[in-house]
Amino acid sequence: MLSIRVATPSRQYLVHVAEGLLQNPSVLETALASDELFVISHPELWQRYAPALQAATGGKKLSVELVPPGETSKDFTVAGSLLGKLAQARASRQTMVVALGGGVIGDLSGFVSACYMRGIRFVQIPTTLLAMVDSSVGGKTAVNLPEGKNLVGAFWQPQSVLIDPHTLRTLPLRELAAGMAEVVKYACINDPAFFSWLEQHAESLMALDMSALTEAIARSVSHKARIVAADEHELAERALLNFGHTFGHALESESAYRGYLHGEAVAIGMVRAAHLSELLGLSPASDRIRLEGLLQRLQLPIKDHLGLAPERLLERMYGDKKNAAGKVRCITWHGIGGAQLPAAMAPQLLLDAWRR
Amino acid sequence: MLSIRVATPSRQYLVHVAEGLLQNPSVLETALASDELFVISHPELWQRYAPALQAATGGKKLSVELVPPGETSKDFTVAGSLLGKLAQARASRQTMVVALGGGVIGDLSGFVSACYMRGIRFVQIPTTLLAMVDSSVGGKTAVNLPEGKNLVGAFWQPQSVLIDPHTLRTLPLRELAAGMAEVVKYACINDPAFFSWLEQHAESLMALDMSALTEAIARSVSHKARIVAADEHELAERALLNFGHTFGHALESESAYRGYLHGEAVAIGMVRAAHLSELLGLSPASDRIRLEGLLQRLQLPIKDHLGLAPERLLERMYGDKKNAAGKVRCITWHGIGGAQLPAAMAPQLLLDAWRR
Repeated sequence: MLSIRVATPSRQYLVHVAEGLLQNPSVLETALASDELFVISHPELWQRYAPALQAATGGKKLSVELVPPGETSKDFTVAGSLLGKLAQARASRQTMVVALGGGVIGDLSGFVSACYMRGIRFVQIPTTLLAMVDSSVGGKTAVNLPEGKNLVGAFWQPQSVLIDPHTLRTLPLRELAAGMAEVVKYACINDPAFFSWLEQHAESLMALDMSALTEAIARSVSHKARIVAADEHELAERALLNFGHTFGHALESESAYRGYLHGEAVAIGMVRAAHLSELLGLSPASDRIRLEGLLQRLQLPIKDHLGLAPERLLERMYGDKKNAAGKVRCITWHGIGGAQLPAAMAPQLLLDAWRR
Repeated sequence: MLSIRVATPSRQYLVHVAEGLLQNPSVLETALASDELFVISHPELWQRYAPALQAATGGKKLSVELVPPGETSKDFTVAGSLLGKLAQARASRQTMVVALGGGVIGDLSGFVSACYMRGIRFVQIPTTLLAMVDSSVGGKTAVNLPEGKNLVGAFWQPQSVLIDPHTLRTLPLRELAAGMAEVVKYACINDPAFFSWLEQHAESLMALDMSALTEAIARSVSHKARIVAADEHELAERALLNFGHTFGHALESESAYRGYLHGEAVAIGMVRAAHLSELLGLSPASDRIRLEGLLQRLQLPIKDHLGLAPERLLERMYGDKKNAAGKVRCITWHGIGGAQLPAAMAPQLLLDAWRR
């Protein structure tokens, strides 16, 4: 089992990565160290993993709340209803929430845990690649309002994160690919050797080679752990993790969150950010071409295929919550393995990056 | 102007106490240091203080949301609606929330500030004595669920707290007295000299002598500041602030929050806690008698006058969210100026304390 320590100022915890981990009672018993557990999951997932979790937690008080799959569950009103269920189950400050699912479950359960009685413990058991390498680590929790996504949330670190790559065997291929975009992101901004490794293993990864997946996940989590330990509340370095995201968010919101999965939008966004950096003379075209090649082998899009208008996408960038005082700030890329903190970009330059 | 520094691990800030502070443009300008302000208040209060705040913040973007007075506004659904209003006003990470009102406004606005975009700045302008000496300082924010009070919240410190004792001139006398209960609490657990000072100034305080009020508030805030700096998240010493509250909460919940104001329940609760400590041989009857005398001069009740049954009150104590694992834990009193962290109490002893 690979165990990666995340040492943030507010809490230190371990991320465990191992094939078959969810069938390992001793790991589960150690991680779920509370007499009162409150599981939040989706019906299908719970059906699949309930036997293992119930066996490992026999004798403990176990409450389960299931929400429908999909972004509509990641909502302030749903959070309120789960908080009510916690109260009805007489959850106490000792209760531990177990988030079993993808990013929707993790973000929702994390927010609920952050604000029930001003904060109770929670454990992340991510079951999608995106959640494994990104949202389950680092303590960003959030729910949506009718007015916009992720507008409400808290920084609240889990007690531990349990990652079993076996759960990816039932993940739709398109979602696996979307998760790969964030894996590629870590290599892009931090780690040229990891980028080469991904180039060598792209097909094994997409064929669910467990040992390749385990390594890709662990290396990604290590990068994330290092960055969030240095900057838990995204005052500086953590912003590097938004590489490709300013462009990506614009694609997501302009297509009303129905055109692209988050990872797909990030893949296209990274290529746009590479173009922008090329226009600024900061990164060579050859690295952008390598990036495009890798993304394509991971079955990811590298440009918008919905015909969204560059002018509209530019407008979306100005509406992004991360963009203060009417300026659009982007991470610049310095070729494979290098990136710099956000700088304000001229609108014409952004438009050129969309159009290239 | 008296300025008290609150140095918690998560944030350092100042509590300013001065007569006429809300008519002082330079103090307001310094404290409200943001170009985007979002005021949360009650209609009547806003009408009274809008001219001063608007004059001091001329030229800034100022949004105002008013909620009805009373505990029903301190609610998760109301918080959701305010979060939506923030989004509609295009509030950003630079926006500063201004909480103008009593504990309901402070707790609600604090929670909203804690979770909008994972936390934006807020300033407390408490207008009741209870909020000035207790809830506005220390960063405990909360809202109610249908299932119970204060079940949802966050630790989120304000940027500053502005206290103008002049606002107390329009406070109903019963609410002034209720705030005095928390003032007496600080003296009880920490400060025998302050207790004697209160005995000397009880009538001046209730007659709204501004210089006496200013001193009582500043001394109370200093005690709270010291305790929350040492223990922001109530892992140990901060629990001392619950002196009288275990008994008080039982009175409040058994009377469905309609029989007593919070401070009145705390006053009765402190006397019950004194009885309990007497039964344990920890505090002398003479100190309890001094406490009763002071509370009565401050127009506070010293025993239940609603005829609530001791057995029912005991049951309420076991339902309190602070009581883990079926044990009721109370702060013990060691006479004026001394208190000790919670210890588990036998049910019969608690019943005896209610019955005395």
